[in-house]
Amino acid sequence: MYLEQINNPADVKKLDKSQLEVLASEMRSALLAKLSKRGGHFGPNLGMVEATIALHYVFNSPEDKIVFDVSHQSYPHKMLTGRKDAFLKEEHYGDVSGYTNPKESEHDFFTVGHTSTSVSLACGLAKARDLKGEKGNVIAVIGDGSLSGGEALEGLDFAPELKSNFIVLVNDNDMSIAENHGGLYSNLKLLRDTDGKAECNLFKAFGLDYVFVKDGNDIQALIEAFQKVKDINHPVAVHIYTQKGKGYALAENNKETWHYCMPFDLATGKPHSAPAGETFASITAEYLLTKMKENKNLAAITAGTPAAFGFTEENRKKAGNQFVDVGIAEETAVALSSGMAAGGAKPVWGVFSSFIQRTFDQLSQDLCINNNPAVILNFWASIYAMSDVTHLGIYDIPLVSNIPNMVYMAPVTKEEYISMLDWSTNQKEHPVAIRVPVQVISDGKEVKKDWGALNKYEVTQKGEKAAVIALGNFYGLGFQAAKAIEAKTGVKPTIINPYYITGVDEELLESLKASHKVVITLEDGILDGGFGEKISRFYGASDMKVLNYGLKKEFLDRFNVEEVLKKNRLTPELIAQDAAALM
Amino acid sequence: MYLEQINNPADVKKLDKSQLEVLASEMRSALLAKLSKRGGHFGPNLGMVEATIALHYVFNSPEDKIVFDVSHQSYPHKMLTGRKDAFLKEEHYGDVSGYTNPKESEHDFFTVGHTSTSVSLACGLAKARDLKGEKGNVIAVIGDGSLSGGEALEGLDFAPELKSNFIVLVNDNDMSIAENHGGLYSNLKLLRDTDGKAECNLFKAFGLDYVFVKDGNDIQALIEAFQKVKDINHPVAVHIYTQKGKGYALAENNKETWHYCMPFDLATGKPHSAPAGETFASITAEYLLTKMKENKNLAAITAGTPAAFGFTEENRKKAGNQFVDVGIAEETAVALSSGMAAGGAKPVWGVFSSFIQRTFDQLSQDLCINNNPAVILNFWASIYAMSDVTHLGIYDIPLVSNIPNMVYMAPVTKEEYISMLDWSTNQKEHPVAIRVPVQVISDGKEVKKDWGALNKYEVTQKGEKAAVIALGNFYGLGFQAAKAIEAKTGVKPTIINPYYITGVDEELLESLKASHKVVITLEDGILDGGFGEKISRFYGASDMKVLNYGLKKEFLDRFNVEEVLKKNRLTPELIAQDAAALM
Repeated sequence: MYLEQINNPADVKKLDKSQLEVLASEMRSALLAKLSKRGGHFGPNLGMVEATIALHYVFNSPEDKIVFDVSHQSYPHKMLTGRKDAFLKEEHYGDVSGYTNPKESEHDFFTVGHTSTSVSLACGLAKARDLKGEKGNVIAVIGDGSLSGGEALEGLDFAPELKSNFIVLVNDNDMSIAENHGGLYSNLKLLRDTDGKAECNLFKAFGLDYVFVKDGNDIQALIEAFQKVKDINHPVAVHIYTQKGKGYALAENNKETWHYCMPFDLATGKPHSAPAGETFASITAEYLLTKMKENKNLAAITAGTPAAFGFTEENRKKAGNQFVDVGIAEETAVALSSGMAAGGAKPVWGVFSSFIQRTFDQLSQDLCINNNPAVILNFWASIYAMSDVTHLGIYDIPLVSNIPNMVYMAPVTKEEYISMLDWSTNQKEHPVAIRVPVQVISDGKEVKKDWGALNKYEVTQKGEKAAVIALGNFYGLGFQAAKAIEAKTGVKPTIINPYYITGVDEELLESLKASHKVVITLEDGILDGGFGEKISRFYGASDMKVLNYGLKKEFLDRFNVEEVLKKNRLTPELIAQDAAALM
Repeated sequence: MYLEQINNPADVKKLDKSQLEVLASEMRSALLAKLSKRGGHFGPNLGMVEATIALHYVFNSPEDKIVFDVSHQSYPHKMLTGRKDAFLKEEHYGDVSGYTNPKESEHDFFTVGHTSTSVSLACGLAKARDLKGEKGNVIAVIGDGSLSGGEALEGLDFAPELKSNFIVLVNDNDMSIAENHGGLYSNLKLLRDTDGKAECNLFKAFGLDYVFVKDGNDIQALIEAFQKVKDINHPVAVHIYTQKGKGYALAENNKETWHYCMPFDLATGKPHSAPAGETFASITAEYLLTKMKENKNLAAITAGTPAAFGFTEENRKKAGNQFVDVGIAEETAVALSSGMAAGGAKPVWGVFSSFIQRTFDQLSQDLCINNNPAVILNFWASIYAMSDVTHLGIYDIPLVSNIPNMVYMAPVTKEEYISMLDWSTNQKEHPVAIRVPVQVISDGKEVKKDWGALNKYEVTQKGEKAAVIALGNFYGLGFQAAKAIEAKTGVKPTIINPYYITGVDEELLESLKASHKVVITLEDGILDGGFGEKISRFYGASDMKVLNYGLKKEFLDRFNVEEVLKKNRLTPELIAQDAAALM
């Protein structure tokens, strides 16, 4: 096996044409074996095998620097840069992350996981090289839907200003996670259809030189193209047409499903564990599709991640023109929502917590200053969601909740969520964001609350001495903590569901002073700039003791949730211990 | 005077060709008169007079909806939509804001002030129109450098997906605030040089139809072009070439200086009040230019606002390739800085507080996860800076200080600032942001602090019972408050300069418990998610009383600073009164 002998890119250069083909096939087998057992980004990596071999055959990493966008297509790169064991040996599968990581290898330059960053980051490496008077190629790999993101387009526009060596490798696989959206994809199609010869050329319009490779899975054609641009003295885009999911027929034919996979059976493609039943994604899509029939002005918006709120291909068809995918372009998703709300429609943007952070300015400037009644559903905002450092869902509370006019809500149960959805999509006074819970809890209780009376918390258990204010996903933990306090002290604490992240229920908090000595807050996110600190500030001048529980401000990576919770004293017992000391 | 008779756009339609020319001349005179007396955005508005007349002549606002980008070029639009008195009568000059504002007129659709938002916002209006089955044109006006911003490029990419009426009016005046940067501007030049006929066309590459108007200050040519695209059934870009500052020779010849003006003498162009002496902008440019000579890897970065840190045209020339203007593209400015730092150079990005909020994801993902030692200088972060709701400098603390790994610092004096600049540009461990003070205070004291020992606050006055922790711009207020407390209670309070916004000096705060009953924090920004709340959280479980002073989380607009401060109890007397009650 050739792959077993590849310890660094120099070893790739020792192989001849036919050996490189065999290497590609070995890499694809290794990918299929690992991904079927462990899951991961599937289609993007299968498509990039040949281009990665050709890159390392032609260029000299790490003197030549390759920067991967999103970097979820960097598995082949990892195989060729000293990390093959993590793909060949099951006991080493866990050795590498799913993204590039400078701590793993000198061939990785950035830890990234969000799209559309590679061109601008690589421009920085090129500029540093030029200032230092050094040589070497800088190559930004981008594709797989990332081109539509604002930062990528800014980068393409800026790159020509470098006026020196800079190579943008555009991996055009005709797909985003779902199908591509945006006019630029018609230009890519025009370029493909004309063998790259069409005069109307997005890359040239941005001032880049341009090279086209018709078959982006043909190693020899790629090698020739890369040799042509190696050591070029100005910015150039190399547009290669690859097949997403190449080498696994099911993935070739159903690219959206196979963008990412959970462990599955190689022969049938069936996942080993059946997908969970009802999720907040399916609940949301079902709710919106029903309401869309009654209200033709209600529309669901996505920025390239329709699965976030259950908009499968089938559901997108049902929604018709009431579903809008702006492509990977979160800023436009917010601005579009604000504009639609201003125009009298009712937009609902579904987004993952990690990506809402791409829109601070749009939330503030386009949406909240204008106070337009758009609705944002924020999914996977929890320590229980993804565990890659680039995709954490624990930073959105400081981001969203400190913007004036925004109403940011945290339901606990399915019933509360539906009730908030109902209210937010029918009111016309506020921009509303809902922090969608991660686990479906349904208590069947009818929710009669008037959500328009903002910042009114609810006492769910009347008690004394201690009050537990437990937000959203951590309501259950708060409930358990209250029980532990009662067990430890014999005193039944008050339990409060605050519902609102953006404001403080001053009347209720004031009333607690009479019969409580300590208030405990819990939130499923970092403490800094978060919900609990607002409660601490409120009680600052009083005798009330306040204990804020949440997560430390830090970048966590591939962690064990229970360990992280324990480290942050987020267990019923530890909370009870702290509380009892103050009661 | 025709302008006096224009009460709404219908009145514009009553005028004939030659009368429209006279109207343009009257509008220009009114602009010159008002701007010379009051200041404001100069060049952008003088350039847009004819296009605005033609827009209102051809289209029927507000059924046809015109959305202005940045909206600092909407003064002519205001004149023609019932707000002429605000430009003709000095006693009414203050009646209108410098930006579009739906509260002022049904002809304004959004309150905006940041660039690059019009296309995406207008897409929302168009989508709402289509869902509701309504008619009417939607026109997004963009130009003046805004095209290079990610949100604008995302919007251009998304617009063709509308597949219905949508008009992008591209006001190409060949300038940003400073000269334009980015490859797309060469494409605009190519289009100008070929009378719009070049096949390589950025707008077509994004999937838009395209119309070119050679002289964007020729009312008749504009009317004809607009009539051609009126009621068009698909998205189209109308590219017009206008002259920034047209009609005022000094502005035509020095477009950067005349982008914005303070009150000035019409005959000579000289501002009425001499520019202030030393500012933090001039101090910064002087410092960086000196250091650049010693260190060729040190570079200053701007995203289209070089004046923020003193990089006048002359200083940019001095810096040579050590100065980079990425154009209006803040996201790329951060990513570029991170990449440069990763590549071993030392980038320093100078930005206005209002615009740093466009980069949350880049600060977190591109910069801080990678912990690259780039330096960010954040100017005008203060209630004392700009007072337009779209340009406030009071939201950056929650935004920047809750990102892990970031070191956000707040100097008080010039000496502290220079010392922090020195440290941050020489260290290699942390991304550092400095909240540059608004007022130059120089005490001549040598600063010997080791800034690398993070989060070490400094006791500047030893006292007892009360401790005042006064951050950055509000250090002086804290000092006065301490004096007022002493006068009121006879007790000399402790005064602390915290320097670091991102962390808490736990040792010092712990030590205060022995001899202090109350801690007072002051910060020049909103309280929610800010600095003071971290102190409140720290003391939550203790007997220490904490009073947090700062600004309420709200959108302020064209306010009187002293009134706002008083409303937030930010005066020495009110603070002393609150503190004394707890001592």
